[in-house]
Amino acid sequence: MVTIAVDAMGGDNAPKAEVEGAVRAARTLGVRVILVGRQEVLRRELEQFDDYRGLPIEVVNATQQVTMEDSAARAVRSKRDSSVRVASRLVRDGIAQGFVSAGNTGAVMATAKMVQGVIHGVDRPALAGIFPTLAGKPVVVIDVGANVDCSPRMLAQFAVMGEVYSRVVLHQERPQVGLLSIGEEEHKGNDTTRCATPLLKNLPLDFVGNVEGSDIYTGKTDVIVCDGFIGNVALKVSEGLVDMVKQMLQESLQATITRQIGSLLARAAFTDFKKRVDYSEYGGAPLLGVRGITIISHGRSNANAIKNAIRVAAEFSAGNVNQRIEGELANGRQAV
Amino acid sequence: MVTIAVDAMGGDNAPKAEVEGAVRAARTLGVRVILVGRQEVLRRELEQFDDYRGLPIEVVNATQQVTMEDSAARAVRSKRDSSVRVASRLVRDGIAQGFVSAGNTGAVMATAKMVQGVIHGVDRPALAGIFPTLAGKPVVVIDVGANVDCSPRMLAQFAVMGEVYSRVVLHQERPQVGLLSIGEEEHKGNDTTRCATPLLKNLPLDFVGNVEGSDIYTGKTDVIVCDGFIGNVALKVSEGLVDMVKQMLQESLQATITRQIGSLLARAAFTDFKKRVDYSEYGGAPLLGVRGITIISHGRSNANAIKNAIRVAAEFSAGNVNQRIEGELANGRQAV
Repeated sequence: MVTIAVDAMGGDNAPKAEVEGAVRAARTLGVRVILVGRQEVLRRELEQFDDYRGLPIEVVNATQQVTMEDSAARAVRSKRDSSVRVASRLVRDGIAQGFVSAGNTGAVMATAKMVQGVIHGVDRPALAGIFPTLAGKPVVVIDVGANVDCSPRMLAQFAVMGEVYSRVVLHQERPQVGLLSIGEEEHKGNDTTRCATPLLKNLPLDFVGNVEGSDIYTGKTDVIVCDGFIGNVALKVSEGLVDMVKQMLQESLQATITRQIGSLLARAAFTDFKKRVDYSEYGGAPLLGVRGITIISHGRSNANAIKNAIRVAAEFSAGNVNQRIEGELANGRQAV
Repeated sequence: MVTIAVDAMGGDNAPKAEVEGAVRAARTLGVRVILVGRQEVLRRELEQFDDYRGLPIEVVNATQQVTMEDSAARAVRSKRDSSVRVASRLVRDGIAQGFVSAGNTGAVMATAKMVQGVIHGVDRPALAGIFPTLAGKPVVVIDVGANVDCSPRMLAQFAVMGEVYSRVVLHQERPQVGLLSIGEEEHKGNDTTRCATPLLKNLPLDFVGNVEGSDIYTGKTDVIVCDGFIGNVALKVSEGLVDMVKQMLQESLQATITRQIGSLLARAAFTDFKKRVDYSEYGGAPLLGVRGITIISHGRSNANAIKNAIRVAAEFSAGNVNQRIEGELANGRQAV
């Protein structure tokens, strides 16, 4: 049975969302879960669930907590018994195959890199965002915030990691990989994308050239490679826009009685729609390139998002993603 | 009366959308419009409108046409009688105060810079995207695609130009200016944003520090400054996401009879919503920093978008935006 640790003190709704998500995962996914955080708090939360004693859930104590205000450096240096650090150590020591955190993204990334280490051949781990598309299949956007000022060589490595993830975890048979730019023609882009293009062409994968921002949601390609600054902007712009759309629709639908009735009748459609664009269905962003498995969930994660993040971690583990990335990087060594 | 030239051969729906947009503008906005393109084609289109002879509309002939496939360099070098070039010349010669084009963005920018020239103190003109926000007021995102690999000094100039535009054309009293980054803290960003921060702080405007991608749609600030590569990705990601949302909602709403009835009753709400997120309401993106006025509309522009772009050009002209930008840049000379 796969074991996944959960940083139970990380997110905006911690530890409630984390504990409930863990219970749901343990009930239905065939996964053992280790909740990491203040023992007495977590046990009290677990008592809410009648069946928890029969479930494969354990609690491991951690006395400290990284907050959203802590810098990554401070979290790593001075909070050695934080829930994220203890969870990461469980992965390093092989007690858990992976861990999930909805906490301070910078601190989680820095901790995972330092405690678990980086897999052979990877210069820099990268955060892979999983986006919904019109084509129905998810697209992997890598990097969405682990690195800024990326070199062309880093982008080539992101392509390799993203392609393996798409193939193995998202079951895309022969993933197509695009480079995020501002026009499809090869000369359209900035210095980094122009220098990355020949490297990407030399990789043993299906590179289709430049794609534009609008192509993320069409599902034109399965993997989109970009600098982490740009990927983070794309991710956050999307979140902001979805929030705006939801609120505008709600306001418009409440403006008259007729619309209210219409809205009532169409309610299932909106639930449907919200589910299709809801980040919580996708669970979280895998940090690719570190040893073991690290899934970073949205700070706003609810129990459903945490459960899905645990599912993603388990699937990641079953697919031996890291070994495959190591193999592919060795294969494409000339290029990256 | 303000005179605005329209490149009538530019957009995906040219010349139909351009001619109809010009007629609507001439009817209602108190603006004189010069349609530029193949004379006989434009006259034939104009004949569709019974009242056109009484309207302040003229036609100026241009025998060539820039296509979406032409590179900017080729358009400038070898199509000297193109509709965009002739329109730009009308602005240079003072016959029109500005021009509107829904054509090849790269070609329009290159033509305007070369033919009209750059205003004093500006290193590089920048494209200002006008986005809707939850706060009801529009936000100016600058640059959305005129420049890549921007220097910190260029970002500071974009801030000055965007602030003037927000104040004078969008009537924000004391516009707040943010720098697009990946976290609010000053140290979060890339090399360029970190070096731009002190320059922005020294400008005589209300600089509020870093903002994130999600802040574009909250209306947290009135102006958001970024490299053109990043702004272009933000713009296109937004367009792609809105297209996805519209289509997903439509699919969901057609899935059952009950929902179809609901959808019918709520139809006005969707029209409302589409209008609120519709780029065509905003008319187009002003290219700030060139002499005269250049408004670049979306390739997909319909007649409404063209009419609104003509309105934007007229407001731009009435506000003496270029003189004010020149003055502000002279004011903040130490910084930029």
